[in-house]
Amino acid sequence: MAEFEIIKKLTSILSISDKDVLIGFGDDCACVNVNGKKLLFTADIQVENRHFVRNKINPIDLGWKLVSVNVSDIVACGGIPRWGLISIAVPKSIEISFLEEVYNGINEAKNFYKLEIIGGNTSSADEIIFDLFLTGETEKFISRSNAEEGDLIFISGYTGLSRAGLEILLQDIKNLEDFEKELLKYHTRPVARIDIQERIQKYANSCIDISDGLVADLGHISQMSNKKIVLENIPISPLLEKFAKKYSKDPLEYTLYGGEDYQLAFTVSKENAKYFKDCLKIGHIEEGKGIYLQDVPLKIKGFEHL
Amino acid sequence: MAEFEIIKKLTSILSISDKDVLIGFGDDCACVNVNGKKLLFTADIQVENRHFVRNKINPIDLGWKLVSVNVSDIVACGGIPRWGLISIAVPKSIEISFLEEVYNGINEAKNFYKLEIIGGNTSSADEIIFDLFLTGETEKFISRSNAEEGDLIFISGYTGLSRAGLEILLQDIKNLEDFEKELLKYHTRPVARIDIQERIQKYANSCIDISDGLVADLGHISQMSNKKIVLENIPISPLLEKFAKKYSKDPLEYTLYGGEDYQLAFTVSKENAKYFKDCLKIGHIEEGKGIYLQDVPLKIKGFEHL
Repeated sequence: MAEFEIIKKLTSILSISDKDVLIGFGDDCACVNVNGKKLLFTADIQVENRHFVRNKINPIDLGWKLVSVNVSDIVACGGIPRWGLISIAVPKSIEISFLEEVYNGINEAKNFYKLEIIGGNTSSADEIIFDLFLTGETEKFISRSNAEEGDLIFISGYTGLSRAGLEILLQDIKNLEDFEKELLKYHTRPVARIDIQERIQKYANSCIDISDGLVADLGHISQMSNKKIVLENIPISPLLEKFAKKYSKDPLEYTLYGGEDYQLAFTVSKENAKYFKDCLKIGHIEEGKGIYLQDVPLKIKGFEHL
Repeated sequence: MAEFEIIKKLTSILSISDKDVLIGFGDDCACVNVNGKKLLFTADIQVENRHFVRNKINPIDLGWKLVSVNVSDIVACGGIPRWGLISIAVPKSIEISFLEEVYNGINEAKNFYKLEIIGGNTSSADEIIFDLFLTGETEKFISRSNAEEGDLIFISGYTGLSRAGLEILLQDIKNLEDFEKELLKYHTRPVARIDIQERIQKYANSCIDISDGLVADLGHISQMSNKKIVLENIPISPLLEKFAKKYSKDPLEYTLYGGEDYQLAFTVSKENAKYFKDCLKIGHIEEGKGIYLQDVPLKIKGFEHL
């Protein structure tokens, strides 16, 4: 059974009746009403050998990434991050210096994104696990399910770079060229797009962060908005073109299906498109279903963790 | 390095400057101000082979316990639980029916405690991991650090029963007697003391939930309140006496040092003691340091997960 189906089956067990819950399962964040304020909740875990390899990641980067992937979910819902709790479970043999470096990375990220880590929990496990629970707040919840016919589709930056960076990391390539070092950083040091959060909150009709891959995540917007996505133009990063040329890869495959980019994909009305001149316009929304590259239906596939 | 010291070292890296953070690390919950409402945050993880053994726990009980241990932290701070997120990381080989049973247990518990599970995250790992983040709310934050000279010390129920239950579970004892079945339930089906939450919020000066063991957790109140704890009387459960007799164990050892009871230990002024006639009075607070059983200093020891 695919991860998506398992989650659907399990979460269907837990029905929600509390009127203060504005958004439950199924979006980048849950959202609750607290005395008139909209609070956002998200959680994202980093598990050794699934999300990182211990000896191939700088622990500072691991701490940074843990925070960034959660901030990305908050921003995708239009919000700013506020308070986090961190659960760690680590082997008893772990070096304290490794943990300190992870926390230094968390500290860098919390200062950068202007949030606070205010509590947590420590346990042991065979593999290293860092689980972050992050809250945020927003004036307006931007969901995956509100794309409207005629909306234009934007992405906040190129996709596929993180996957190329991951492959460079895993293949232990020596004497990296400058463009390869840059690609590596897209994987190890993703930056959540907090810089465009205000505009997303004000002007986007729908939004998602690209963690599973461009097509997979646009698939969520398509399904939840019950609309057809038509891609007109897939911008390919010059860095990725260099990578593809050197290693004989298809850059379009990386761009459409690479994961962990933590860019935002969002839709806006034609009138509001002018606020996103620094972003990449890739298509538009029509009535219907599915995702098309011009006339060609695209297969929806993405990372499957389970 | 002990778990406590590691946590202290790591959390010292993450300083907090946000004025809306009322309580950070170091208590049962963190606490923030949201438009005048005090929100509580806690997280507690259940890791296979640390907190449970896959083939020795009913998955429904695992789900129940995951929720209960988190509710216990909220109640210990005087609050009621509201909204939770659940992170799961499980082996790819896991049976979906096992997960469904865990979720059925979570569902039972969420209905019992009147809270909602509103989101989460799914990943894979070699061991089964369930991590719950739970929020709550309270009119008044009851901390570990506010025990006052002259306060009386109460516990909400007998301690040591869960540890006895755990030993029965792990030793695969056949043909259990009725008292042994009861002890088992204290371990597998702990009930957080939501029933006395209102009185804790109104009348307790300090409170903690007993997860690490009675003496270890009273040690936290002693250290954080900078007061001496004098125990006059340690009530020993009749169930535990039967267990101790049958297996030649020292029931006092279990009562003082057994973990995972999820009873509350709290201090109240003499005037407010009348509200807790259904609880067990075990001592009082004096100026000074440490924990004494009458005149004898007690060694502070407890579960060490790391």
